[in-house]
Amino acid sequence: MARVAKGKGVVLRPHVKTHKCAEVWADICAAGNTCGITVSTLEEAEYFHAHGANDILYAVGLAPGKIARIAKLVAKGARVTGILDDLTVVRLLEAAANEHGLVLPLMIELDVDGHRAGVDPLSDELLDLAAAIAGAPSLHLAGVMTHAGGSYAATDGATLNSAAQNEASLSVKAAERIRAAGFECEIVSIGSTPTALAEADLTDVTEIRAGVYTFFDLVMAGIGVAQIDEIALSVLATVIGYSRSNGCLVTDAGWMALSRDRGTQSQPVDQGYGLVCDEDTRPISDLIVRGCNQEHGIVGPRDPEERIDFAQYPLGTRLRILPNHACATAAQHTSYAVTESRTVVDVWHRTTGW
Amino acid sequence: MARVAKGKGVVLRPHVKTHKCAEVWADICAAGNTCGITVSTLEEAEYFHAHGANDILYAVGLAPGKIARIAKLVAKGARVTGILDDLTVVRLLEAAANEHGLVLPLMIELDVDGHRAGVDPLSDELLDLAAAIAGAPSLHLAGVMTHAGGSYAATDGATLNSAAQNEASLSVKAAERIRAAGFECEIVSIGSTPTALAEADLTDVTEIRAGVYTFFDLVMAGIGVAQIDEIALSVLATVIGYSRSNGCLVTDAGWMALSRDRGTQSQPVDQGYGLVCDEDTRPISDLIVRGCNQEHGIVGPRDPEERIDFAQYPLGTRLRILPNHACATAAQHTSYAVTESRTVVDVWHRTTGW
Repeated sequence: MARVAKGKGVVLRPHVKTHKCAEVWADICAAGNTCGITVSTLEEAEYFHAHGANDILYAVGLAPGKIARIAKLVAKGARVTGILDDLTVVRLLEAAANEHGLVLPLMIELDVDGHRAGVDPLSDELLDLAAAIAGAPSLHLAGVMTHAGGSYAATDGATLNSAAQNEASLSVKAAERIRAAGFECEIVSIGSTPTALAEADLTDVTEIRAGVYTFFDLVMAGIGVAQIDEIALSVLATVIGYSRSNGCLVTDAGWMALSRDRGTQSQPVDQGYGLVCDEDTRPISDLIVRGCNQEHGIVGPRDPEERIDFAQYPLGTRLRILPNHACATAAQHTSYAVTESRTVVDVWHRTTGW
Repeated sequence: MARVAKGKGVVLRPHVKTHKCAEVWADICAAGNTCGITVSTLEEAEYFHAHGANDILYAVGLAPGKIARIAKLVAKGARVTGILDDLTVVRLLEAAANEHGLVLPLMIELDVDGHRAGVDPLSDELLDLAAAIAGAPSLHLAGVMTHAGGSYAATDGATLNSAAQNEASLSVKAAERIRAAGFECEIVSIGSTPTALAEADLTDVTEIRAGVYTFFDLVMAGIGVAQIDEIALSVLATVIGYSRSNGCLVTDAGWMALSRDRGTQSQPVDQGYGLVCDEDTRPISDLIVRGCNQEHGIVGPRDPEERIDFAQYPLGTRLRILPNHACATAAQHTSYAVTESRTVVDVWHRTTGW
């Protein structure tokens, strides 16, 4: 991703919510071309600041009650940028920032695809918001940002490229409108793993954000931006029984280990709760996790009419399950077992909480 | 549940997987009438043994590779009982138990409703399994157990009572068949929160297992065994924005805080990702969490055509979200904030991992 960003003439602000792990972040830094991090919780901000991150974008709408914790990070030398998309919050953030003696950098969140949050880049509201922030003495308008969450619905390259170009063009347009209205707008921050890996002209974009590329997952493979053998995260499971009535294996990896994410359900290839591999992470043709209980996984052929030959999977057989959504599956665990072949060569802690 | 069990003439073996918390377990013990605990992972067994639990049923099919950890618990004075449902595993468990110098208590898992695992209580296989265990010098046949997981699909009392009676009757029948064949079968262990709270004659059942009753949740309310105001677990969320296009609030509690569990989806009342309450846990009529991203919750009226009056929910408003499935939502957190009214009076750690 560092190379991709460089090729597009932008810097990378990796989203750390996928891995929440200092060692992974150190590897990302070693690849170069980063400008800080993106976080989804203040806990992530605090954890990664303690591990050396200084330029932090908190990419979830900022509530005034969270300024006190940001002020503590700022006092330790961090630059923490918040985002907002609503005029009514400016007054509240100004009061809170002023109370804590901050000049708080803020970016306006843009809605480029009707996905979740953000203001219309072509609206009057965008300029009203820019004016309100620029006019608030304890706030600083740092730029615009968007997350093209709608790109996750793409399943072909043309749709994805179109989503990526739309994200870039509308963000640049919003920045131009803000500048034309007489306000500063230094940063144009866009991104998501799918759009970052798509083809788009990023002229005048300054940075891209991406997170799930760190591990990749089946959803990314379904979108077409990753190959199955590029997925770096899997859950090691053991065969603990047989469901003879439906011809399935029972494993000890249920939703507690895999998460309940069913992100591939709406894709052309539904991977159930995960794609099943052998212990060396080679996919076993068309075996998926069909169902999950808390600590039980039900493994069977994708075709529900087919049955597993139990003799091939003696009790105790170990399998690796590739996840639908790396962020969700990793979140079910407190550490990563780093492996070379079948050997665990290190254990990396991941942080948790809010 | 202690009172319910006593009224039915059985003891309670609470399942600790819901709460994974020593303080909660201490409260359960204080209510009396328990005979030990049920666990779903060996980590739970180790944690609760360290907190005083000695009689532990590991209610997930036992793989031979896990005997080494059980042997360590036994060496510390614990009685750990495993379960199995397959003849092919007996030889493997015998070898592993023998290697570790154990006489390992085992219960035969019964399938009373085609739900997941277990042997047919009326089958020849049951007796073959009993004979194999009884004939293995390092194994001890402790009894039979079942989990009527199919009862979770019940949405009326008659169906539920029927599921509960079926669970009890078939389990007692299985024990009788084993005894008639000349083998010991001391324990008849059944249960789930729904069937434990249903009406059934439990004559000759010795213990019931239940877990989610500890907190209750929306799925249990949908089945009819809990009232909404009996749900003891909620996630505190803050309004951080507005999704003006669809008339929804945006909160900072997404699936990372709530889990992806959609257990009420198949019930008559679909509660989305959770039922929304005010800060005092009073449900706000028909507000649910309609959608979730990692750290964003989308809160709107159950009827997707309706819109929220944003003026009633200023930025920073705090809401409490009741969970679909207490086990899943609690698992997203590392501790419980114990509250009296709005005041946090204690923080209880919960364990995690495998």
